[in-house]
This record gives sequence, C-alpha cells and structure tokens, in this order.
Amino acid sequence: MNDFRSDNVLGASPEIVEAIARANRGTMTSYGDDEITARVRDRCREIFETDLDVFPVITGTAGNALAIATLASAGDTVLCHNQAHIVLDELGAAEFFSGAKLVPIPGAEGQLHREDFVDASCLSITNATEAGTIYSPDEMRALCEGMKRVHVDGARFANALVAQNCKPADLSWRAGADILVLGATKNGGLTADLVILFNGELADAMKAHWHRGGHRPSKMRFLSAQLEAYLTDDLWLRNARRANGAAGRLARGLSSIDGVEFLQPVEANILFVRLPAPVPGYQFFDWPPFGEGAVRIVTGFSTTNEDVDALITAVASVAR
Amino acid sequence: MNDFRSDNVLGASPEIVEAIARANRGTMTSYGDDEITARVRDRCREIFETDLDVFPVITGTAGNALAIATLASAGDTVLCHNQAHIVLDELGAAEFFSGAKLVPIPGAEGQLHREDFVDASCLSITNATEAGTIYSPDEMRALCEGMKRVHVDGARFANALVAQNCKPADLSWRAGADILVLGATKNGGLTADLVILFNGELADAMKAHWHRGGHRPSKMRFLSAQLEAYLTDDLWLRNARRANGAAGRLARGLSSIDGVEFLQPVEANILFVRLPAPVPGYQFFDWPPFGEGAVRIVTGFSTTNEDVDALITAVASVAR
Amino acid sequence: MNDFRSDNVLGASPEIVEAIARANRGTMTSYGDDEITARVRDRCREIFETDLDVFPVITGTAGNALAIATLASAGDTVLCHNQAHIVLDELGAAEFFSGAKLVPIPGAEGQLHREDFVDASCLSITNATEAGTIYSPDEMRALCEGMKRVHVDGARFANALVAQNCKPADLSWRAGADILVLGATKNGGLTADLVILFNGELADAMKAHWHRGGHRPSKMRFLSAQLEAYLTDDLWLRNARRANGAAGRLARGLSSIDGVEFLQPVEANILFVRLPAPVPGYQFFDWPPFGEGAVRIVTGFSTTNEDVDALITAVASVAR
Amino acid sequence: MNDFRSDNVLGASPEIVEAIARANRGTMTSYGDDEITARVRDRCREIFETDLDVFPVITGTAGNALAIATLASAGDTVLCHNQAHIVLDELGAAEFFSGAKLVPIPGAEGQLHREDFVDASCLSITNATEAGTIYSPDEMRALCEGMKRVHVDGARFANALVAQNCKPADLSWRAGADILVLGATKNGGLTADLVILFNGELADAMKAHWHRGGHRPSKMRFLSAQLEAYLTDDLWLRNARRANGAAGRLARGLSSIDGVEFLQPVEANILFVRLPAPVPGYQFFDWPPFGEGAVRIVTGFSTTNEDVDALITAVASVAR
Repeated sequence: MNDFRSDNVLGASPEIVEAIARANRGTMTSYGDDEITARVRDRCREIFETDLDVFPVITGTAGNALAIATLASAGDTVLCHNQAHIVLDELGAAEFFSGAKLVPIPGAEGQLHREDFVDASCLSITNATEAGTIYSPDEMRALCEGMKRVHVDGARFANALVAQNCKPADLSWRAGADILVLGATKNGGLTADLVILFNGELADAMKAHWHRGGHRPSKMRFLSAQLEAYLTDDLWLRNARRANGAAGRLARGLSSIDGVEFLQPVEANILFVRLPAPVPGYQFFDWPPFGEGAVRIVTGFSTTNEDVDALITAVASVAR
Repeated sequence: MNDFRSDNVLGASPEIVEAIARANRGTMTSYGDDEITARVRDRCREIFETDLDVFPVITGTAGNALAIATLASAGDTVLCHNQAHIVLDELGAAEFFSGAKLVPIPGAEGQLHREDFVDASCLSITNATEAGTIYSPDEMRALCEGMKRVHVDGARFANALVAQNCKPADLSWRAGADILVLGATKNGGLTADLVILFNGELADAMKAHWHRGGHRPSKMRFLSAQLEAYLTDDLWLRNARRANGAAGRLARGLSSIDGVEFLQPVEANILFVRLPAPVPGYQFFDWPPFGEGAVRIVTGFSTTNEDVDALITAVASVAR
Repeated sequence: MNDFRSDNVLGASPEIVEAIARANRGTMTSYGDDEITARVRDRCREIFETDLDVFPVITGTAGNALAIATLASAGDTVLCHNQAHIVLDELGAAEFFSGAKLVPIPGAEGQLHREDFVDASCLSITNATEAGTIYSPDEMRALCEGMKRVHVDGARFANALVAQNCKPADLSWRAGADILVLGATKNGGLTADLVILFNGELADAMKAHWHRGGHRPSKMRFLSAQLEAYLTDDLWLRNARRANGAAGRLARGLSSIDGVEFLQPVEANILFVRLPAPVPGYQFFDWPPFGEGAVRIVTGFSTTNEDVDALITAVASVAR
Repeated sequence: MNDFRSDNVLGASPEIVEAIARANRGTMTSYGDDEITARVRDRCREIFETDLDVFPVITGTAGNALAIATLASAGDTVLCHNQAHIVLDELGAAEFFSGAKLVPIPGAEGQLHREDFVDASCLSITNATEAGTIYSPDEMRALCEGMKRVHVDGARFANALVAQNCKPADLSWRAGADILVLGATKNGGLTADLVILFNGELADAMKAHWHRGGHRPSKMRFLSAQLEAYLTDDLWLRNARRANGAAGRLARGLSSIDGVEFLQPVEANILFVRLPAPVPGYQFFDWPPFGEGAVRIVTGFSTTNEDVDALITAVASVAR
C-alpha cells in the first residue's frame, strides 16, 4: 500500500461489508424505523452513557451541515478554527443549511484557544483536528464553557479517543457538546457517518433537516448495519488504534532520517512533514500552506507495519 | 412476503451486495474520480446513446432536489403534478436547494396534460407517476415542448421503461429531458440512485450542488459499484419486469374478486384499490385521498408469483 | 383619476409626506433604536391593546417572508389560500426565507375554510383577501383554532377592519394570530409596512431575519415616521374607509348597468367584474382566471366620488 | 452637532426630502416601471458613460447581498477583506442570498492586495474601505485582474471618488467591476441605495433576487426620487466633498494635539484615532480592534466647519 493521501482512499473493514450482506434479509420499515437503526441507537446510549438520538448520514459534510443547522440559525454565529473542514472543504454547506454565519479563528496546531473568543455564540470543534492534533476532555470543556451550543466534527473522533484513552462521554457531552458527528467512513466504514444528538429538544429540528436535505435513505438499514458493525466488539477503536499506531511508527521512523522536518505534532493518524526529496512510487497530498516540499501523510485502519516500514525505507533512500 | 407497503421495504439484489464486496479492494481516488464511477458513466452513455454526466446520490429526494437546483434558481417556476413526490414527500427540499418556486398542477391518474400549463417555465415529470401510471415517449415529448428545462423524477424509471418496451433515450433526453434521476434503491439497489445530466453546460452547477449538499461521498466507489451492478446484464430491467409482472398478475387476480375496486389504472408496479375488508397478516399503506378502505399495494423486484397468489387468496377469503 | 389597476399606483397621504420632512431633524441612533420607532411601538400597543414588537419593512413581500420565517422553519408546513399573494406573487420568498413548505388550499371567494385542513401546521391568512372579501373575527378564530402558529398578511388589514367595524385586537392576536404584517403602502403610505409580533418569544428570530434580509434600514426614522403618521388621528382607518366607500359606491353604480357581471362579493376596496366592453381611457388589470373580459378594479385612499362617478358613466356608455 | 458615531445618524439632504414630496403626484406604474426610475437609469448611464441597469434598494446590506447573489452561487468563492461590512456586519446575508462562500482575507489599512489571493474566484471590494482608506482606479484594476466577477460595496463610493477626483467609470466598470452598490443613505439620502449592474447578462438574475428578496417596492417612485435628486446637480459629489473636507479639517486639527494617535490614514470621511481622554458631550464608536481608547469618528454630508472646530477644541481641552 503506497497511497497515503487520505484515510478515504482505503476500502472498508470486512466486518462492515459482511454486515451489509447480513442486513439484506426480509422486509423492514423504511426511513429509519427499523430494528437495526434501533440497535445502533441503543449501542450508542451504552457507549456514551446517556440518552441520545442517532441520525445516520452518508458523509461528514452532511453530518456537519445538518448538525450545525440544528444548533444554529439566522442571526447565529458559529465560531470554528480557520482550518476546519467546514471552512475549507465543504463549499459553504454549513452556512447553506443553517443560515448562520461561520466565524473562522486562527490557532496554532489546528487548535482553538479559549482566550481567542468570547462566549454567547455557537462553537464548532474538530477533534482530532485537521492538523492531526487532539483536544483532551479538559481542553474541550474549557472551550465549551459559556458557549450557546457546541458541535463536534468527529470525522476522526475514534482517533482522538484512543490517542488518550478517555471515555466517549468525556470527549463529547460531558465536555459540553450538544451534537457529535461520529466519523466511520474514514475509519473502516463504507459510506456512513453518524450524527449523535445529546440534546433531545433539538431532535425534531434535526429530523427535519435530515429528511429535507435528502439525507434520510429509505433503506436505512444499509447505513445502520455499517454503523452497528463499526460499534460492535470495539471495531471502531481497534481500527483507530491501528491507524494511530501506524502514524506513530511512521513518525518515529522518519524522525531518524536527516532532512525530514515535522511541521505539526503527530497525535492521531496524520503527519505533516517536509520531505528532503520526492519519494517515487508513493502518493501524498502536497500541503502548500506549509511551504515547498510539505506533504500530508495519512495512515488508516488497514495500514500495516510493513506498509509503514516500506515507506520509511523509501524516504530514507531519497534522503541520502 | 406479506409487506406490500412500498418497494423500499425490500432488501437489495444479491448482485448488488456482491458488487460492494468486490469494490472493497485496494486504494482509490476519492470523491468520484475512481475507475468504477468512470465505468458507470461509460455504461450510461451506451444505454442512453449520448454523452452525459453521472452523479451518484443516496436518495431520490437528494437526486430530485439537486437536479432541480441545477435547472432552476431564484425567479424560476417549476411546474409539476400536485401529487409529485417533490410536492408531497420531500419537505420542500426542491425549493430549499434551488430557490425556485414549485407550482403544483392537478391532473387525473397522476398525470400532467399539456393544455393545463403554458410554456417558458421549468417542468418536473415523474415517470412512472406516483399513481402508478406511465407516460409514453410521445406524451413526454408533448409535455416538454416549449419548456425552459425539464427534470424527470425516475424513481421508477425502469418500471416505466419495461412497461412499454421503449428505449431509455426515447423516455429521457430525446423527449426533452435535461436531467434524469434514475432510481435504483426502489428497484433492487441498497442506497443509490443516479442523477444523469444530459445537458453538459450544467455540469459545474450540478457538481457544486452535489458537493455542497453533502451528497458526494469520499468513498464513492461503494455507491458506484451498486449502480454498475444495477446496469450490468440488464439487472435494472429484469428487476423492473418482475415488479411490473407481479403487479399485473395481482391486478388480474384481484379483478375477479367481488368488492375490489380499482382506483387507478395499473401500468407499472403500484396498485390503488379499495378492498372489501381488511386483510389480516398483510401490510399496505392506507391512501386517504381515495377515501375509506383505499390502499396502495406495491410490488417489487423480489416479489414472487407465490407472494402474489397468496395475497390474492387472502383478499378473496376476506371478500366472501 | 382613471387608473384603477391597483392601490399601489397611487401616491401617498400628505400627512405621511410631511412626517418624513419633520423627521429630518438632528442626529438619531440608527437601526431602529430611535425615538420615532419607539413611539410607533407604543402607539401599536395602544391600538392592539397588548404588548408587542414592531419591525418596519419596505414591502409586504418582505413583511410576509420575514414573518413566516419567524414562525416556521425546516420541516414546517404553512397552509394558505391558493390565491394568496405569498403563493402567486412573491417568487417563493416565503419558502426562501423560512425553509418551510407552503401548502396552497383552494377555497371560494378567496377564503379558507376550517374543514379543508387539519391542524398542527402553521397557517397564513390574508385579510382582506386577494378576492376582496373579508374574514370576521369569528371566522378568523375558527381558522386559527388548533394551528401551531398563525401569520396574517394584512396588506389590506385596515380595509378589513373598517368594513366590519371591529377592534384591531379582535382581528389579530385575540383571534389567534402570532404575527401581523400591517400594510400601509397600499393605503396611503410611501414605502412602509409594519410587522407586528404578538409572540415575544420570537422577537430574536424576527430581528435576525429582518437584519440579515437587508430589511433593517440604518435611518429607520424615515420608515417609522411614515408609520407614525399613518397611525395618528386614525389616518389609516380614514384612508381605508374612503377606499372601501369608493368601492361600494362603484359597486352600486355598476350593478345597475346591464352587462356588468360581478365575479366576487365586494367587501373591501377591490371589485372583480366582467365588463360588457372595454372602457376607453381607463386602466384595470385583466384577470384571466375569471375568463374573458374579467377585470380587477381597485379603489384607494385618494379615490374621490367624482372619480367613481366618472367611471360608472364611462362603463354605462360602453354598455349601451 | 456632537454625534460622530456614523454617517447614518444624520438626516437627509433637503433636496432629497423635497424630491419625495414632488414625486407624490398622480398615478404611476408600480414596481419600477415608472418614469422617475427610468430617469435614474438614464442619469446613471450618463454618469458612468456606459449601458447599465439600476435596482433601487433600501439598505446597503440588501444591495450587497442581492448583488453578490447575482454574481455568485453554489460552489463559488467570494474573496473579500476580513473587515468588510459583508463579513462583519450583515449576519451572513451575502451567503444566505447567494449560497456562495465568503473567504475573508486580512490586509493592512482595510485593503486587499493582489498578491494575497489567486484568481478564478469572485471578488468583493469595498471603496472607500471600512478603514476609511481608498483604492485608486489602478489599484482596483490590479485587484480585479483575472477574477471571475467583481462586486463593489460603494456605501461610500462618492467619498472615494471625490477624494481622488477620478471618473465614476474608472472606479467601477473600467476597473473590472460587474456590479456596484452605490451608497446614498450614508451620504444624504433617506433610505435608498442603488445597485448598478454593468453586466447586462445578469439582469434577469438580479431582478429575480431583488423581487424575491422583498426589495422591490411597489411605489418605487419614492426610492427613485431620492436617487434622482442625489444624482442631480452633483449633489452626491458635493455631499461627499463636504464630508471628506470635514474629516480632513478634523485630522489636521487633531494632529496638532499631543496625545492623539492616528490609527489609520485619513483618506475619506472616517478617522480612527486614540484619544488622550474621553471627550464629554461627544459620541463616537469605541473601536476595540485598535485597543484601549481607540474610537471611530465619522463626518457626514452636513458636518460644518463649526462642528469640526468645536470638536477639535473639545479634544484639545481634555488633552491638556
């Protein structure tokens, strides 16, 4: 495997593919009133240790936009990091669905700092961040303090969780989140992420945005089956551990090579490095904000030690 | 199988489930620049005998709303039947995504008639209609004549096609359609429909709406694989033939039962009937617009002759 | 005066023009925190005998769209008459600003009837109606019963009021209205209507929609001054009495002319009639929904008895 | 006059108030097809030396949002200064009306610099800027070079014009602007700004946004009359000269006072200064981005030399 452009160039966990085949039995009530979706909700209630609602979606962009539309509307301000996915990569989806105003805030290492904004607005936090760093529960709590409502873009939530071995609840509603978009696609899913709503008062609004947005499939079972498998036997955590482990191994290997410059701390499954030379046969994304030669390298749920070691060897060979 | 509420309570064709497993190999460029999506486009060009663009989506609501947003914007009027899915079932998605105004028009048997509207607006046609009737290529061409732009809601396009044995091109762009939302979900797919754009000038707009709407999955291959299987070896047509055949067999069987009243012509895979009494053990949707006792019965790609005959027997037994 | 196309082809009451000149003194806090706007609010509280908020706007379309956006959002249904201005004349403004779905309902004489819809949705009532008829307080109360929220398009509210000599409160919040768009432009104003919000919980939402919509002028005093003059010394009621009186006089005069057919009851300041022949030198709007020869004739705050009698004479002369 | 908070706390030029009274004669076709609006269009064609369309609006927020919606839609990026009114003060109006994404860019003295962005996007330029500085025609042309489409927020366009004595055409379409929102309200108008569209292909889109936005008053004559007076006998330029002159005189006076710190160059009618102490009896806006004690002082079309000199004296007296 020599394609390290993103965790979304990979396929899916076999358990998840099998779950889809298994879900293909008999008739089921459509639009989410089926038994598999009910089990996903129950499983999330266990994992997050609280009452909550779930809304499977096909993309993180959908999850973020619908979640923000549920929290914020005309006249609201949504603070977020200026490198957030909702700012840079989603074509204004959050503004379109919500009618609210995003206010991007700069911050080192992809992170927001509480002293850089005043409260009374809504807040969107990405954890793990786009820079590959993570917030601890304490840091999250400090950010959420005094804010009107809080959205968490958790496209790599599992990676943030296993990086610090804390509880899902501590990194979400206990820290102040009203809604979490739990990523699965980037971590072994096929085409499913999950909006988890901790604030029951907003369930009708979320349901309306979800349906009107065209994001509520009639055969919901096939999204929910992916999510059920993802959350069964800790597959989501195991996948994230492997991705993070591969990134750590890679960071250690590269750090001993002359001419490799680390541009961000490596805390999850993403590395930003400047390489001494192009590495033939490998695919990364160039990362112009960090200047000439900077690349982003992303490991995933299926990256093996062999993949990592081969890449280290390849970089070492061009570094000479 | 005793659940006839909708074609979306069924599962998926085994060929389509297998295609997902087969697509789970190696890394692929994300967001639709993969080889499977390219093959779907090529296959559609063959089937529709013209150049075109394809945009896989997860729901018909998404397909319709994004397609209409591509054709129409602020100040535009979109004429449609007053029982259209976009009017009754999508919570204003088409208006939300497009900013245009829907103008619902009544018409018997779920159909629009050219004399009921003047041209210079956009038009949305559903074929097969929500009433289970179909438009012929000639009828479609007459409707499209002089209209600014035309959208076809083809959630049951395959059913309309096999009902009259015409060519896909004749029931779409040759009749005047700019964009077709080709249903797969209701006809054996898992969670995939396909927006087919015949008007290349609009490709950038469609792409923007698709991405901003959160409807462009990173691991597109898993939607495209469903669609590729759907369009291979005429699976889509075979599935629709079986669904229509089951509806026809059912209609013939019911027509010989005293007290069964047919409320619409049966031309595709939907029946609207008034039953003489409730039928224990069976599920249909009540259909209040047609009055007391009216139900909608929908057959699907996996409905068997045995399923149909058992239902006929059950109705006959309550009719006595 | 021979232009009877609409009440908006007329100019403005002199009192209102003078009020603008009078407001042009000294500096004032902008965006509505000025003393004139405060007096308009106080005056409305007296007139409507309750607490309320006021939001001056430049057009009825703006007032309706912002008001509906305040009451309804994604997933909501807003029932309204199928000839309502919000349905036919505002290019989808209500849907655009609110994200809700309008559901147009037919009804004779421009009126809704309670038995034609079920509750739990939002409702938009036009009074006086587009057909020139009026609802009584009792009829309004019956319509509002059980509805989630109610908007009143009062472009001709004063005309409805003086036609039946009831209290403003009885025709608005006491009947169940949450928000009233009180027309002034069509009744002697220059460019000002007034959104009156009876439901204080919605004030923040209304304010956000108003400002974001570009409908909150910095020099608010110049809108508020119009409205203050309008509501002073019963100018609004006097103007409406004259408009309604002219329509009544005209109706009486025309009813004695052979070949004039009345197409709707005349209860406010609008007549729909079929004329026996074109009337040279006069301007009306043709009204195709009522067939060949149908026209709409609208009287206004400045229509004189001489204007009316001259028109009657002109019609009589072509009728011979 | 001791209120220097904004140019919108002032009243209106007498010529403009008189024009409203003068427009109050006879009946006129509504919604902008009247003779006064036609004369405004003709006058603008003379002033700007080109063909163009005009759309009177009630606020600059409306003008900006509608103009941007005309230039940009889903998928488009609109670059602008991060202190632009459309970014900081309009609650997301531009995003709401257009569906496009604003990308705010920092730049000293309220100005954009061509090297800070790449082309192929849309661009919004404010001239005079929010910092009270101005772009020359050459600077504007450099900014517009290679951009897809260009909007100019000209709330203080007249101030920018007279500050450098150039032609209106040179500071608008000749420099690359597709659309200009020409401010009048801040410069002696009552409640009128004017969208001037140089790109005729976009006229239908602009008209649709204008009407659907509720920004097209039926009695348009009363907006257009303001604008006609504004553009007659160079009233707009005379007013701007007086405002700029007052700012210049004030800057010269304050610059000789110890302890007054200038925070931005003074090129139009706005000063940003740090005062040595509060000035009793005067009103300014505090300006926190420039730190403790920073205020914004705005002069206007009616600011007199006496007003200015009195303020200088007052500052001098607290400075001692």
